Amino acid sequence: MNAAPSSRTRIRRIPELAVYEREVLHGILDAGYLCHLAFQDENGSHCIPMAYWRINDALYIHGSNGSRLMKHLSSGAEVSIAISHLDGLVLARSAFNHSMNYRSVVIYGKFVTVIEAEQKMAALDAFMDKLAPGRKNEVRSGSKQELGATIVLKITLDEAAAKVRSGGAEDDTKDMHIEVWAGVLPFQTLQAKPVPNEDCKVDAPLYVACWQGGKQGQS
Amino acid sequence: MNAAPSSRTRIRRIPELAVYEREVLHGILDAGYLCHLAFQDENGSHCIPMAYWRINDALYIHGSNGSRLMKHLSSGAEVSIAISHLDGLVLARSAFNHSMNYRSVVIYGKFVTVIEAEQKMAALDAFMDKLAPGRKNEVRSGSKQELGATIVLKITLDEAAAKVRSGGAEDDTKDMHIEVWAGVLPFQTLQAKPVPNEDCKVDAPLYVACWQGGKQGQS
Repeated sequence: MNAAPSSRTRIRRIPELAVYEREVLHGILDAGYLCHLAFQDENGSHCIPMAYWRINDALYIHGSNGSRLMKHLSSGAEVSIAISHLDGLVLARSAFNHSMNYRSVVIYGKFVTVIEAEQKMAALDAFMDKLAPGRKNEVRSGSKQELGATIVLKITLDEAAAKVRSGGAEDDTKDMHIEVWAGVLPFQTLQAKPVPNEDCKVDAPLYVACWQGGKQGQS
Repeated sequence: MNAAPSSRTRIRRIPELAVYEREVLHGILDAGYLCHLAFQDENGSHCIPMAYWRINDALYIHGSNGSRLMKHLSSGAEVSIAISHLDGLVLARSAFNHSMNYRSVVIYGKFVTVIEAEQKMAALDAFMDKLAPGRKNEVRSGSKQELGATIVLKITLDEAAAKVRSGGAEDDTKDMHIEVWAGVLPFQTLQAKPVPNEDCKVDAPLYVACWQGGKQGQS
């Protein structure tokens, strides 16, 4: 399906860039680690960066149960969440037609708290698997106290939309004679050389040894 | 100064990571192109990715005067804006102490519209200079009609705070004996090979020829 799930996820500005397919949404989410979260409280609107991960058709975040933010979000606050990847600068022949290539998803809804211990542990394990596959079996698992101090929140992608721009510059016909370079200056997020802790005497496992040179941000 | 400019920019969660110095804020802003904008309207909270640039102690955005978003923002809506760079995954010896290295800024306030034509042109030129230094003299400048169709908005950094985490894993003393790799898996945003438009017959200017291999995201 490529129809907006709600009025507020129907993209009105350059609607031909709108995408509502699950696979595209999931790909954009899986290509990142940080989302931005918008919500309202008695002090106004807030925009907060948060680590996230995806399981099936839901986005998860976690935080301390001492955090005002987590308490607010777990109490049924309406939120909007954006995940964005910048892929390149698009240089056109006129100043006006300059653009950027990007992939973004915006989600609306309310978080629900993952309360049941087994589900909470499975959600945190999935997060660790995203960060470093298999590592959950190597580290010390969360103690009962640590798990109790952690809130895990889940929001479904029921009300979500993606917007994607790719490709080269789109110039007006009347500007095509202008002798200036036109095209895309791309970005690529690379995985750089791992930095072991000074006190680390353990050989690098596969997911560390293979980290460098890998590419992130591709859907 | 390293004191929060307001109650809502005082960082309560891990306050030792808070930074309020101008140079740090400016560096984080200058290292990016996309901000996330939170605001409230009759449909709830929204989180929208937007291109931005900085001039002196203010952040600028631009958009179409036909856009509902730009109209709303120019009418004095309270906003919160976040700019975030993810620098690495921090792998600790316990699941609980895993973290991420990042640099982020959150700004609160209201946009004002840059109305005066010369100021508006100067602001847009500064944006072009950020994208591609010198290019403003090569492309077709905005026509009177194009400039009229463009809204430029400005918000000062009066109410802003940065939060920065860097360095290795911080483990509990009791976990130091666990034989698992600990350290940072870093990310690096690289400038990749330029992609000229198929219809581009012009040699690459210096800012295109030198693009590949350059590093973004460093403050």
